[in-house]
Amino acid sequence: MQRRFALMISPVAADDERDDFDDTFTTVDASAPALSVGELSTQRGDGVFESIGVVDGHAQEAEAHVHRLAHSAMLCDLPGPNAAQWRRAIEVAAAQCAPGEAVIKLILSRGVEHGPTPTAWATAAPAGDFAAARRDGVRVVTLDRGYDSGASERAPWLLLGAKTLSYAVNMAALREAHRRGADDAIFVSSDGIVLEAPTASLILRRGDTFTTPAPTGGILHGTTQLSVFEYLAAEGFRTAYETIPVAGLATADAAWLVSSLRLAAPIRAIDGAALPVDGGITASLNRYLLSPRN
Amino acid sequence: MQRRFALMISPVAADDERDDFDDTFTTVDASAPALSVGELSTQRGDGVFESIGVVDGHAQEAEAHVHRLAHSAMLCDLPGPNAAQWRRAIEVAAAQCAPGEAVIKLILSRGVEHGPTPTAWATAAPAGDFAAARRDGVRVVTLDRGYDSGASERAPWLLLGAKTLSYAVNMAALREAHRRGADDAIFVSSDGIVLEAPTASLILRRGDTFTTPAPTGGILHGTTQLSVFEYLAAEGFRTAYETIPVAGLATADAAWLVSSLRLAAPIRAIDGAALPVDGGITASLNRYLLSPRN
Repeated sequence: MQRRFALMISPVAADDERDDFDDTFTTVDASAPALSVGELSTQRGDGVFESIGVVDGHAQEAEAHVHRLAHSAMLCDLPGPNAAQWRRAIEVAAAQCAPGEAVIKLILSRGVEHGPTPTAWATAAPAGDFAAARRDGVRVVTLDRGYDSGASERAPWLLLGAKTLSYAVNMAALREAHRRGADDAIFVSSDGIVLEAPTASLILRRGDTFTTPAPTGGILHGTTQLSVFEYLAAEGFRTAYETIPVAGLATADAAWLVSSLRLAAPIRAIDGAALPVDGGITASLNRYLLSPRN
Repeated sequence: MQRRFALMISPVAADDERDDFDDTFTTVDASAPALSVGELSTQRGDGVFESIGVVDGHAQEAEAHVHRLAHSAMLCDLPGPNAAQWRRAIEVAAAQCAPGEAVIKLILSRGVEHGPTPTAWATAAPAGDFAAARRDGVRVVTLDRGYDSGASERAPWLLLGAKTLSYAVNMAALREAHRRGADDAIFVSSDGIVLEAPTASLILRRGDTFTTPAPTGGILHGTTQLSVFEYLAAEGFRTAYETIPVAGLATADAAWLVSSLRLAAPIRAIDGAALPVDGGITASLNRYLLSPRN
């Protein structure tokens, strides 16, 4: 793939039973104008998305991403996406990807202001080079997410479990981390419970047990974290969802941020305190995450 | 104005001293493709905006909006906008507006992913018809904003004082209000302090005193609220910024949501309990807000 690729998608109702949707796709140049200024995605970050890792033309965990897109759409009162059409869009986009690592993004916007239907598109582009983060690890800082751990259940309009396009706070948290000399952040609830990173899930190791914050409504259920837990269980490790107080971070034997593109990045410091990097496990996790996964 | 109008703006450094920027504007059809899918406004709601009311071709409170755009940009680590260029963009857009009410939006996005500069544009369009809301009022419900009142000071990366494009929660709150049979919402902090509406400021009346929640970092400083307070002070009323507990809503003599486009909408019920509508003050507020204001 020499350049970015975008596929504009005519939304099809979720109960449409067709399985050939190619007439609903229009290929556009990703660098050319494709969206109007009336787009609610751009005016209000009003829509949902997914980022899918692609390795040698294989879209990783495609089904889990399509499923989460539908879950996010439901939380945002968007029309249910047609899963078969999105699966086909992923296939078409993946076929455009050159060997190596790439990224497919799925975007479902509420559409043009006062318009009749959502706007939907998928893009494919070469992935960044994450070799250093996967090998050497990342320094993280903990940042207050502002919400207490009861907020998501009490106030579903906060959309805490949805992967919406309103990511300005996530981006601001990454800039704050960089200002503090770190590479990434871990969000903590205002009552001191560990949540997730702005664009990744957290996994801790204690002995032979791997834990991650319980996927209550307050955090996204990470597709990569789920896949890693399947792998670890198959390797004979114990995995668990837990409520992790912020003080529990410092006592971990090792920790990782895991996400669809950077994959498993070992955490080598939290708030300036060094954490051991488990090179062996990290390498095996990334070998697994780079193998074809459904 | 028959159709929506959009002006794409080539960003100019804040310290550029030119005062003729017309060569940096490109007029586009607002319904035609103008933005690429790589736009960070659309991918992540990563940018800031303003909505300016226009009455008979006069942009209301243009300077206050340009000032707030710059403040939001600063909070989001965006390059400082060139105020003179934005003023000129507002003039050009206002000149496209037909008699009656219209809306100009200013948008400053972080730009295309990995791109060198922000993307900036302005749009103009006829305003909606808010006659009924201004006359008959709106029913509101209180909704938990999830943050406690100390969050904005403790965690500036939450961008609580910035008018960002990440408005999915604001839109979800309006949908929740509609589900509950109301027209609008009033956000309340998790510790019970009244904040603002998703797209408006709140003003309460008690006797001859008008109050609004103190514009700490947790809420936007409303341009219309500021203008209304100037008007009320000139009319001999007392105005004040206060910390208003949620219980204080029910004891108001009257209340309004004020914003750039709908202007002053009297609140006629809060959480199902009726509130008296002060027709006289409401009419005088809207007469004032529809007069040319700088």
